[in-house]
Amino acid sequence: MRIAQVAPLIESVPPVRYGGTERVVSYLTEALVAQGHDVTLFASGDSVTTADLVSVIDRALRLHPRRVDAQVWHTLQLEEVFERAASFDIIHFHVDVAHYPLASRCKTPHLTTLHGRLDLPDLMPLHARFPREPLVSISDAQRVPLPDANWAGTVHHGLPLDLYQFHPDPQDYFAFVGRISPEKRVDRAIEIAIACNTRLRIGAKVDPADQVYFEQHIRPLFGHPLVTYEGEIDDRQKNDFIGNARALLFPIDWPEPFGLVAIEAMACGVPVVAYRHGAVPEIVSHAQTGYVVSNQQQAIDAARRVDRIDRRRCRRHFERRFSSATMAATYVELYRRLIGTGTAPAPFCAESSLHSQSASTQEEEPA
Amino acid sequence: MRIAQVAPLIESVPPVRYGGTERVVSYLTEALVAQGHDVTLFASGDSVTTADLVSVIDRALRLHPRRVDAQVWHTLQLEEVFERAASFDIIHFHVDVAHYPLASRCKTPHLTTLHGRLDLPDLMPLHARFPREPLVSISDAQRVPLPDANWAGTVHHGLPLDLYQFHPDPQDYFAFVGRISPEKRVDRAIEIAIACNTRLRIGAKVDPADQVYFEQHIRPLFGHPLVTYEGEIDDRQKNDFIGNARALLFPIDWPEPFGLVAIEAMACGVPVVAYRHGAVPEIVSHAQTGYVVSNQQQAIDAARRVDRIDRRRCRRHFERRFSSATMAATYVELYRRLIGTGTAPAPFCAESSLHSQSASTQEEEPA
Repeated sequence: MRIAQVAPLIESVPPVRYGGTERVVSYLTEALVAQGHDVTLFASGDSVTTADLVSVIDRALRLHPRRVDAQVWHTLQLEEVFERAASFDIIHFHVDVAHYPLASRCKTPHLTTLHGRLDLPDLMPLHARFPREPLVSISDAQRVPLPDANWAGTVHHGLPLDLYQFHPDPQDYFAFVGRISPEKRVDRAIEIAIACNTRLRIGAKVDPADQVYFEQHIRPLFGHPLVTYEGEIDDRQKNDFIGNARALLFPIDWPEPFGLVAIEAMACGVPVVAYRHGAVPEIVSHAQTGYVVSNQQQAIDAARRVDRIDRRRCRRHFERRFSSATMAATYVELYRRLIGTGTAPAPFCAESSLHSQSASTQEEEPA
Repeated sequence: MRIAQVAPLIESVPPVRYGGTERVVSYLTEALVAQGHDVTLFASGDSVTTADLVSVIDRALRLHPRRVDAQVWHTLQLEEVFERAASFDIIHFHVDVAHYPLASRCKTPHLTTLHGRLDLPDLMPLHARFPREPLVSISDAQRVPLPDANWAGTVHHGLPLDLYQFHPDPQDYFAFVGRISPEKRVDRAIEIAIACNTRLRIGAKVDPADQVYFEQHIRPLFGHPLVTYEGEIDDRQKNDFIGNARALLFPIDWPEPFGLVAIEAMACGVPVVAYRHGAVPEIVSHAQTGYVVSNQQQAIDAARRVDRIDRRRCRRHFERRFSSATMAATYVELYRRLIGTGTAPAPFCAESSLHSQSASTQEEEPA
């Protein structure tokens, strides 16, 4: 299948450091190539891939040495994609929403994976205006605020099998990995660890936007002897940082659309103690790969008995449900369905007579 | 003629306070309606116009009571424009560049007025990729950095004749109006005024980005007894603020693409002492409507003899060259030329066979 993957230009694919969307696009792209597909990746020129790379700019925008106008480069990327649209069987967008007016007028089947939270007020009128754009959610929970959009399916994120190694024998600490921000609630993680009299290692970055919150609410808590703050950790460090933990604490306080770190833990064989928000119940199987809790008392109880979870079972669950090969296969199934259905483009410009004819022809096919 | 004007959504049309592009779009729209055209204005819902207003959002983005996602609303506006494209004879964009991929595939004749500075490195590759998009510059000077773009013409900004009144009898002060920022060089204006022993009244806002510059470099200069800082002034105040001045000082230090305040002064009959940068030589007729200078000594000499300029002549020059009726008539001429030429859309998506056929048919017509 001739597949186009369209990635954001903010970070390279894969990203040098943080960049959840770009990481997932990378895993998906490599898995599709491995499964024999003819994949073209639209991404920044410093991306690394076995697919055909098409870049409108040499470096990712966030770390570009000169000040760049993001809108210009995203516009150029869309131009590049749509100029080549006829050469693909399917175009898969991971780039927010600016492509909708073009995509909706394009006959090449396409879909858009929405990677962010969808409970933002502007997204309702937007998707009401593009009711036929095929969308993919990264969890069922994510799509709740937009029930009427044209959901083609939910595809959970997946990781390469060899990215993280199984760690059968934990050391005596809990791990917290992510950003220090109000919705991630590292303060809860600290409280849980102290209640369990267990060391907490924190591998987390602080975004500029969260600096005040960090200084006022979090840094004082780092004084406790059980708490170690180790700054931002990279993918390589993460393997042992998470893998050697007795559990990953994930006490979030917001509708997390997915939560990659939860499946990273699972890949290491590490159980997760997670609050019931967003995608958590879809990812963490309660009492099997961790515990899904609703308050601090439940979280502390769960963390105390977390050694009852079979780490081997966590890894097996990961391999079955959250590998990038599984993700790619699920997407290919979706691609086939969308190609089979056909995409009837919206009428465009002064060509309305031409288009409405071809559109109505297509509309008679089963939608 | 059925004309669409597509304005930015950041400010209303006309803007409540600052917003050069939105002001010009308003003047143009009203003048086109007055000349009997059927005009549709795409702008925020709090815009005020005699044209048909099409709004995707109730209020302008900058002053919107809730936090809004600008990309969503600009995307929705483009969808609205292109859905209705077939019902216009011409579509006139004033909205930066994100519409190029759509516009280049649209058969309805269209053009884009670029309102900003063009000496930014990203604009070269962008316009190289869209070599056939018809562009309008707001001065000949503005287009120098992009010589190879598809320039349809230069159209200077214009103001309604009754917006500013002729002020025959000046009071004894110079005026400075604009932003306090390094490229506007209010420090030069202060030096000129002091050298002429003439009062300087400053009506200017300070953007957050220029706050440090203002505090460190400019505020100390305001201590001089000849200098009065009166904050930001609105359109109504401007009439007398500029009109009663002996001269407007415009000692800019950057390639100003137009400089609306220079024609506002001219409309009041006020001569302008301006540095030779950007559009200045196209707007200020040396020794007739003011003086075009290259250094402080020339500026001071010019300011000293500025009463030799005939204020009535300034006003007449404005009425002949810089009225919104003149601007509208010049644009209509351009519209007619573009409609006559026809627009051959770029190939789009899987319809390439269809499109390339119709495109080549059109390409045989005189380009």
